[in-house]
Amino acid sequence: MAQRIVTLTTDFGVSEHYVGAIKGVILSLNPDAKIVDICNSVQSYDVLDGAITIANAYRYYPSDTIHMVVVDPGVGTTRRPIVATTERHIFLAPDNGVLSLVYEREERLSVRHITSEHFFLNPVSNTFHGRDVFAAIAGWMSKGVDAIKLGDEITDFVRFSAPKPKPLSPTSIKALVLRVDKFGNIITNLRPEDVPSIFQEPAGAFTITVGKVTINKVHQNYSQASPGELFAIIGSMGYVEISANRQPAAALAGVNKGAEVNVTFAAAAAAPQAAPAQ
Amino acid sequence: MAQRIVTLTTDFGVSEHYVGAIKGVILSLNPDAKIVDICNSVQSYDVLDGAITIANAYRYYPSDTIHMVVVDPGVGTTRRPIVATTERHIFLAPDNGVLSLVYEREERLSVRHITSEHFFLNPVSNTFHGRDVFAAIAGWMSKGVDAIKLGDEITDFVRFSAPKPKPLSPTSIKALVLRVDKFGNIITNLRPEDVPSIFQEPAGAFTITVGKVTINKVHQNYSQASPGELFAIIGSMGYVEISANRQPAAALAGVNKGAEVNVTFAAAAAAPQAAPAQ
Amino acid sequence: MAQRIVTLTTDFGVSEHYVGAIKGVILSLNPDAKIVDICNSVQSYDVLDGAITIANAYRYYPSDTIHMVVVDPGVGTTRRPIVATTERHIFLAPDNGVLSLVYEREERLSVRHITSEHFFLNPVSNTFHGRDVFAAIAGWMSKGVDAIKLGDEITDFVRFSAPKPKPLSPTSIKALVLRVDKFGNIITNLRPEDVPSIFQEPAGAFTITVGKVTINKVHQNYSQASPGELFAIIGSMGYVEISANRQPAAALAGVNKGAEVNVTFAAAAAAPQAAPAQ
Repeated sequence: MAQRIVTLTTDFGVSEHYVGAIKGVILSLNPDAKIVDICNSVQSYDVLDGAITIANAYRYYPSDTIHMVVVDPGVGTTRRPIVATTERHIFLAPDNGVLSLVYEREERLSVRHITSEHFFLNPVSNTFHGRDVFAAIAGWMSKGVDAIKLGDEITDFVRFSAPKPKPLSPTSIKALVLRVDKFGNIITNLRPEDVPSIFQEPAGAFTITVGKVTINKVHQNYSQASPGELFAIIGSMGYVEISANRQPAAALAGVNKGAEVNVTFAAAAAAPQAAPAQ
Repeated sequence: MAQRIVTLTTDFGVSEHYVGAIKGVILSLNPDAKIVDICNSVQSYDVLDGAITIANAYRYYPSDTIHMVVVDPGVGTTRRPIVATTERHIFLAPDNGVLSLVYEREERLSVRHITSEHFFLNPVSNTFHGRDVFAAIAGWMSKGVDAIKLGDEITDFVRFSAPKPKPLSPTSIKALVLRVDKFGNIITNLRPEDVPSIFQEPAGAFTITVGKVTINKVHQNYSQASPGELFAIIGSMGYVEISANRQPAAALAGVNKGAEVNVTFAAAAAAPQAAPAQ
Repeated sequence: MAQRIVTLTTDFGVSEHYVGAIKGVILSLNPDAKIVDICNSVQSYDVLDGAITIANAYRYYPSDTIHMVVVDPGVGTTRRPIVATTERHIFLAPDNGVLSLVYEREERLSVRHITSEHFFLNPVSNTFHGRDVFAAIAGWMSKGVDAIKLGDEITDFVRFSAPKPKPLSPTSIKALVLRVDKFGNIITNLRPEDVPSIFQEPAGAFTITVGKVTINKVHQNYSQASPGELFAIIGSMGYVEISANRQPAAALAGVNKGAEVNVTFAAAAAAPQAAPAQ
């Protein structure tokens, strides 16, 4: 219990003392806590970006990990601090939807409004609940304080749906750019099942238009592509990505987060007939 | 003792091997040391930026934490390496004032000139004492070597005062921008007590001019502001900050670190009369 | 064994969930693993940059450290995952030369092609072997799985030589900029022994031309230089660096990684005559 893992997913950045103060608060309460940075460079105020980040990392952690997820533009208002417990994990966050993509993935879920202010730092600032509220609660929970001690269960917690692609016709769909990563990969909100014919063997003809480029090729890995060629690939988050080989696809296409992605594709081939019984 | 916490506050950045080498030196000497990054992206050569960073983080850490603070433009010269011990903490740093804001906050303070070269790496480079001197000393101290073993106490250590606002009249004061954070918040060197009428209830009229904007409103949290509105708020470091709601105030005002902040304000209201005894 | 150190040197960046997912995979397999970031901001796809980074950090770590080095533009192709064991350390990497500068430094070396797929995550993505292959192997090795269990030894592993300076005459040499660091220091691929007369006492006359500047001075530390003056110095990586005092030399010279460095220097002085026997 003592070496409990506490992960951090925040937009506090790495250029000031903010994350250092958070870690100090946790370690003061429990010097044996094992703090792990998932990402402290979530885009400022961007709750969806935070939601995507934690949703793609938490499930790789061991059971009983405590995940602090603080992207908190409403800090200091009446937005609630919450603790969400799933079958295997615990999440601390402001109740602004930043856990929405976790809720989507988890069947058993209990969310509580944290009201036990005696666990908070004293005083609590109006602008830095990451330090004064969430880090303090994380420290106490890492020492064994149960969620049940923190406040009552609620069911009206805030949740949003990640933006979904919109089918325009049986063979066309409009999607968007969810994120551009450090490599310049364009991560769309398309799932392979949204455009099945593209990823069939053999692939049906298709066009994906994003920014100033049109893509009509799928590759299995980056190295298959010629220099400057953009292509579609199933990425490690489970989304369709537009990439290039050792080049930033987003710069080549001239797009950023939020840009439109228009896809036309062949009707999916009929399922292959079952082989005749022998 | 073995799991001793060692924090890092440096300007070595996160894009090269520098911080990785520092951590290796510490762990080679004490594999059980618990290394925590406070911030390795202090602005290059900026001793004041480093001083602000450590001063706003260290006090959240448990007793006996060892804080390595290396912003060291004078590396390789005769500037002294020092160890400062306060009631609860230990600091390792070059003697260039980077601990000045720690000294300001601490009553009991002992500073020693580190001269015990047998604890250093061998050879010591001229350009990277973070690795060759400070990390080695941190490793040894985390194993229990006492400050007293490192060198003699000194009293002529370098300290500077953080830049203070200058009153221009009983109702006006000139301050400056101490830092712009990742969110674009403008952190001034004004304390609420420098401009008491602004934060009274009800607030007196005031104007704060910074860059191309004039602010005349106080808010308690970011969400109270309209889009594009700049306002004053008491920030988590205890300074007056100029902020906007989900927008970077510094970009809206067109200012950066060091910019002038001019404030005019109403004379402070007289203290309320004591309630008559019943 | 349980508290085994695992270091990370990758180009996955700090702005997405990638490194967070890697850490989760390792900790799920071994919650007691001690994960240390050497650098996750290696330049994207830049195998040489990764090679320089790990080569300048690993030897400071204790024996039996496991170093994960993932700069992997060929992910998803047939390039092999490898484990390299040296006298003191273990390295996990794609077989693309990213360990070349480690191989150069190590006399005893055994490299194996990792083929034991039952240790991988299931399924393995085509684009993120850092998570699905290398982190999983790191987790298992940190629990005690031996390299011998991972696959057969190979001798045809990929290695390249770091770019070496080219002598043009006995008193001139052409070098290049290996890296520009966070401070703007220009790190060349020149070793002091390539230009011995420059670092003799007294130094012979020399000129180093890089970008739009010519340097003809050596300093022992940054503070010896006047404002705006560029000079040569032996840096902490063992290379000749071009630096300025509290200013970014690379910006002053207008150069970046890969730029040419031309040096002319005096013939080395003859070795001093042995003192006559007394």
